[in-house]
Amino acid sequence: MALIVQKYGGTSVGSIEKIRAVAEKVIEYHQQGNKVVVVLSAMAGQTDNLIQLANEISDDPDPRELDVLMATGEQISVALLAMAIKSMGYDARSFLGFQVAIHTSHLYGKARIYNIETGQIIEELKNNKIVVVTGFQGLDDQGDITTLGRGGSDTTAVALAATLKADVCEIFTDVDGVYTTDPNICPKARKLDMISYDEMLEMASQGAKVLEIRSVEFAKKYNVPIHVRSTFITERGTMVTAETKDMEKVLVSGVTYNKNEARITIKKVPDQPGIAFQIFEPVFRSGTIVDMIVQNTSEDGLTDLTFTVPKSDFYKTMKVVSGVAKKIGAEKVLGDENISKVSIIGVGMRSHAGVAKKMFGALAGENINISMISTSEIKVSCIIEEKYTELAVRTLHKAFGLDDEQKQEQ
Amino acid sequence: MALIVQKYGGTSVGSIEKIRAVAEKVIEYHQQGNKVVVVLSAMAGQTDNLIQLANEISDDPDPRELDVLMATGEQISVALLAMAIKSMGYDARSFLGFQVAIHTSHLYGKARIYNIETGQIIEELKNNKIVVVTGFQGLDDQGDITTLGRGGSDTTAVALAATLKADVCEIFTDVDGVYTTDPNICPKARKLDMISYDEMLEMASQGAKVLEIRSVEFAKKYNVPIHVRSTFITERGTMVTAETKDMEKVLVSGVTYNKNEARITIKKVPDQPGIAFQIFEPVFRSGTIVDMIVQNTSEDGLTDLTFTVPKSDFYKTMKVVSGVAKKIGAEKVLGDENISKVSIIGVGMRSHAGVAKKMFGALAGENINISMISTSEIKVSCIIEEKYTELAVRTLHKAFGLDDEQKQEQ
Repeated sequence: MALIVQKYGGTSVGSIEKIRAVAEKVIEYHQQGNKVVVVLSAMAGQTDNLIQLANEISDDPDPRELDVLMATGEQISVALLAMAIKSMGYDARSFLGFQVAIHTSHLYGKARIYNIETGQIIEELKNNKIVVVTGFQGLDDQGDITTLGRGGSDTTAVALAATLKADVCEIFTDVDGVYTTDPNICPKARKLDMISYDEMLEMASQGAKVLEIRSVEFAKKYNVPIHVRSTFITERGTMVTAETKDMEKVLVSGVTYNKNEARITIKKVPDQPGIAFQIFEPVFRSGTIVDMIVQNTSEDGLTDLTFTVPKSDFYKTMKVVSGVAKKIGAEKVLGDENISKVSIIGVGMRSHAGVAKKMFGALAGENINISMISTSEIKVSCIIEEKYTELAVRTLHKAFGLDDEQKQEQ
Repeated sequence: MALIVQKYGGTSVGSIEKIRAVAEKVIEYHQQGNKVVVVLSAMAGQTDNLIQLANEISDDPDPRELDVLMATGEQISVALLAMAIKSMGYDARSFLGFQVAIHTSHLYGKARIYNIETGQIIEELKNNKIVVVTGFQGLDDQGDITTLGRGGSDTTAVALAATLKADVCEIFTDVDGVYTTDPNICPKARKLDMISYDEMLEMASQGAKVLEIRSVEFAKKYNVPIHVRSTFITERGTMVTAETKDMEKVLVSGVTYNKNEARITIKKVPDQPGIAFQIFEPVFRSGTIVDMIVQNTSEDGLTDLTFTVPKSDFYKTMKVVSGVAKKIGAEKVLGDENISKVSIIGVGMRSHAGVAKKMFGALAGENINISMISTSEIKVSCIIEEKYTELAVRTLHKAFGLDDEQKQEQ
C-alpha cells in the first residue's frame, strides 16, 4: 500500500469522456489498496477561454481579479471528477486551494507555495476517500485567491507529495515520458527510464516542456520521486529521482536546443574595471534575463563582449546597449537573431574528461561553426547558426550513443 | 449619501458588453457619493451549462460537488465586473461567498443563510471601493461551498442589505417592476409603484416570478426596502416595503394565476376523527406539498375531501391516496389535471367586506364555474377550469379597477 499523488493535465481532463476515464484509472489505484490524492488542471481550452473573457473586458485585467477568474477552471475539473468517482460507487471529496489550505505568497498570477495544511486531506484518506485537489491555485495571507502561473499544477502536485510524504508523485500528461531529445526533429530519440533532478532541471530550462521547472526544484529539495507518464497508455514513463550510481555511467542523457535567444556583441570595449557593470546594470534593470556572456581576451586594452538574451527582449536590449556603448566609447554594437543554442546534458560528464571535445568534434564534422560556448558541471552549450539546429541535434544525439537503433531515420 | 446594495441577474451580466454597462451604472451611483455593494448572478446560460456538464457525468450528481461546480458561475461574473470597474479607473474588489464570509446551513443546493460577516466589506467601502459579491453561494460550518438554490442571489442581496443596514436593496432585472398581473395574458396590466411585503409574498408564491420568495421573507423580517427595476432603463420600478396607510386604500393590488396544480378528490370518506391525518400523513411523507384543502359538510357520516398538489406530484399522490382510500373504506378517488388557480391579492381587502363576493360575481358573469375557494386575510383564490384562466384574469383585472385605460386591449 502506498500514498500516491497523481496529477492530470488539461488534455487528460479535456472532456466528459476523458474525466470518466481518469476516474476509472484513479479507482483502479484505489482498489489496489493505495491512498490516492489527485491534482487536476483546468479542462483543456478552459484557461484560454477565461483569459479571452478577461481580455475582452480589459486590455490590462486587474491581477487579483484575474486570479479569481482563472481559479474557476480547476474548480470545475475537481467537482466533475469527484462526481464521476462517486457515481462509480467510490467515495471522493474535492478540495479547492483555499479549503486545503494551500498558503502562497500574494504575487497574483505567479504566487509561490509557502506551506500546505494537510490535516483534512489525511483525515479523508483515513476515511477511505479519494481526495481531489485543484492544482495551480492557493490562498494568500489576506484570504485572496492566488494562482501559481502556467504549469503550476505540477508544482501543486509535487508540493502536496512532499508535504504528505507520498511514495511517488505521478505526473500524467499527453506524452509518455522524458526523451533524450525532441522526437519531432530527431526520430531516433529514446524515452529515458530514469533521469536525475539536475538533468531534468537542465532539460526543462533548455526547452523541454514536459515538467514545470519549479516543480522539479521542489521535488529535488524534498526528494520527491516524480513519475512522468502518459494518461492514455499504461506503460511506465520516466522516473525523475535523486542521482544514482547507475546514472553516472551514462556520459550524456539528453540533447536540447533553444531557438528563442538572440546574440548581442559590443566591439572594442575599453577593458577597464567596472565596465561589465556599466553595461549590464541597465540591461538587468530593464527586466531582461541575460543567458550566456563571453568576454574575449583583451588586445591593446580593448575587448569584445558578447551575450545572449531572449529573442523577445532583443530590440529593447539593443537600444539600451547602444546607448551604453556610446557612453563608454566602444566601437559598435552588433546583433544577430538567427542563432540557436544546442546543449548536451548528463551527470556522467562530471567524471569524464573530453565530453566537450567530442561535442566540438561532432559539430565540426558537419561543418557547423560554434560562436559561443558555455559549460556547467553537467552541461555543455554551444551557440550556432539557427539553420543548423536540427542537424546539430541529430549529430550530437548519434555521437553520444543516444540513438534508438531500432527506429528508422525518417 | 446612501449605502446601496444592488443585485444584477443573469441576463443583466449575460455578455461582456452587458457587464461593461453594469460597471458604468455602478460607477454612476458611486460618483453620486453612494457606497455601493453589488451582488451578481452567474452570466445567463452559465448555470445551465454547468448543470449539463454535471448531468453528462452522472444521472444523479453528488450534491456537495454540484455546489462546488455551480459556485464557479458567480465567481466568473464578479471577477469580470471588478476588472471592468477597475479598467474604468475606479477601485473595486470582488468577494466570493467564503471570503465575505456568508455562513449557511449545509443543505447543499438549498442552503439557508445563517449570518454574514461584514467587517471586510465595511472596511473596503471605507477605502472608497466598490464591493462586488457573489450571489447564490455561501460556506457551511464544515468549510464546504453551498448554494442557495434558484433565485438565491436575490436572497444574498437582501440578506447583505439587512446585515449592512443598507438604505435600499435594488434588484435589477429584465422586467421594469412588479405588475398588477401577467402582461402576457392581460395587456392592460399596470406596473405598481409600491407593494407591501405581504402582497409581494402572495404574488411570488402565486406564480409571479419577479422576486425569489425567500428574499421577500427576509426583507420583511428585517424591514429592507426592495426596489425592483430594469437594468436596461433608468425609470423607477416597484418599491416593495412595509405596509403604508396608502396601500390600504386600494382594494386589490394584483391578480395572479397558477396552472401548475392538479386536484384530487376522495369521495365518501367516513367522517371520523383522525381520518385527515391518515390521508395526508403518507402524502406529506412522500415530499408532496399540498396547497388547498376543502372538506364538505358531512352527510350520512360520509364526506368528500378535495385538495390540490403540484402537477409534477400528481401521479405519485394519486397512487398514495388510492391506497389510503381503500384502507379507510372511501368510495373512490378522482383526479383532475385541467385546473388552474386564480387569485386576487391586496392588503386593502382586510378592511373591506364584499371583495370575495365581487370576485365570484365577476367570474359568474363570464360563466366560469368555481370548484374550490380558499381565502386568507389578503387573498382570495378560486380553482377553475384551466381553459378559462386567461379570461378569468382579464375579467378580475377589470372588475377590480386595475386596467390601465391608456393601453389598448390586443
